[in-house]
Amino acid sequence: MGLTRLVLVDPKRYPHPDADALASGASDVLRAARVESTLDAALAGASLSIGLTARPREFAPTVMSVRAAAAQALRYAPIGDVAVVFGSEMSGLSNAELSYCQIVATIPADPEYASLNLAAAVQVVAYELRVALLGDQVWRAPTFRPATHDEIEQLFAHGERALTAMRFMNPQRPRRLLPRLRRLFARARLEKEEVDILRGILARIEQLAVARSAQ
Amino acid sequence: MGLTRLVLVDPKRYPHPDADALASGASDVLRAARVESTLDAALAGASLSIGLTARPREFAPTVMSVRAAAAQALRYAPIGDVAVVFGSEMSGLSNAELSYCQIVATIPADPEYASLNLAAAVQVVAYELRVALLGDQVWRAPTFRPATHDEIEQLFAHGERALTAMRFMNPQRPRRLLPRLRRLFARARLEKEEVDILRGILARIEQLAVARSAQ
Repeated sequence: MGLTRLVLVDPKRYPHPDADALASGASDVLRAARVESTLDAALAGASLSIGLTARPREFAPTVMSVRAAAAQALRYAPIGDVAVVFGSEMSGLSNAELSYCQIVATIPADPEYASLNLAAAVQVVAYELRVALLGDQVWRAPTFRPATHDEIEQLFAHGERALTAMRFMNPQRPRRLLPRLRRLFARARLEKEEVDILRGILARIEQLAVARSAQ
Repeated sequence: MGLTRLVLVDPKRYPHPDADALASGASDVLRAARVESTLDAALAGASLSIGLTARPREFAPTVMSVRAAAAQALRYAPIGDVAVVFGSEMSGLSNAELSYCQIVATIPADPEYASLNLAAAVQVVAYELRVALLGDQVWRAPTFRPATHDEIEQLFAHGERALTAMRFMNPQRPRRLLPRLRRLFARARLEKEEVDILRGILARIEQLAVARSAQ
């Protein structure tokens, strides 16, 4: 998700071969991790600390969703470092650890299984930070040229001729056939090449209809 | 995240003891999984299929962010089943598999490491579906009674007396001290109990200041 600064507090073992194996593409982030013996030391320099928890705490400061917290993080980022604090897999953050945080954030989850595993929680937070920073934009599908108004109208005119020729439609009583087809193709936002394919099919239908009526 | 219907397509092994171990709180979901031999069979009954991919495909249908796709899923949910389709850990979805999907969704990610592992991708999608369905609401911190306007004004009046008594402030030339303190406490949104604590501290300051000036 583009985050690079990892701080580990009192890890059981670091470096750890399992961690190296799991980091796959991001082993540079893992290798560059800072190791501190206390959370206090890890947070030195942070202007805003956001602690994650799955359970309500009596003395929690502002509690907000991780999406709202990501928006707050973005407001602070230009003026100071923002830390996101996760507890251990087994027990999460203690109340003492949470008391270092100005914001307590939580991930909306099924109350029956509210506690995500650590990797899942980190993924969601990192994702929300990325979307908050860079927006929800994704790469675009390659754009084929969209059909123009007149190309589409010619297609409909051709379609009406073909449907009439094959006696599927009586032009005196078209019922709702044409409006429904218009609706379908409007939704699909036709490309030029698709119009060409459809007109090829229509031309073949007309040939067949003419051949049949000539029999 | 509250999802319960899992369909596995041609799994190497099912049930699998590793999967059971990892499912922890959600082993009921895993045990109730439907197993199909093809994706085609797995999608039977689905009205909208959303396929996840990390890489652009030339013939992809509408490509959108997973957040936008979750919004679409919600619009379809009242009228038909919505399927979210994930590929294998190793190779993702093939073009043929994606061609079953009306929507191709992607998770905004660092282009350097764009391909999340499968569990991470599932977590993000499930999270977005939950937030799309239920909103971004989280449990509230226990609410202590907020201080009222008059309680806060009495605190400020008390503070002004104490700061004057301890000769920290000259009431004739208060400079910007009081507005700054007002700003700080406005931001903190004081609770009644906190006002009481602060007034206890102020009362003690006044005692000390009086004792000192009596010396």
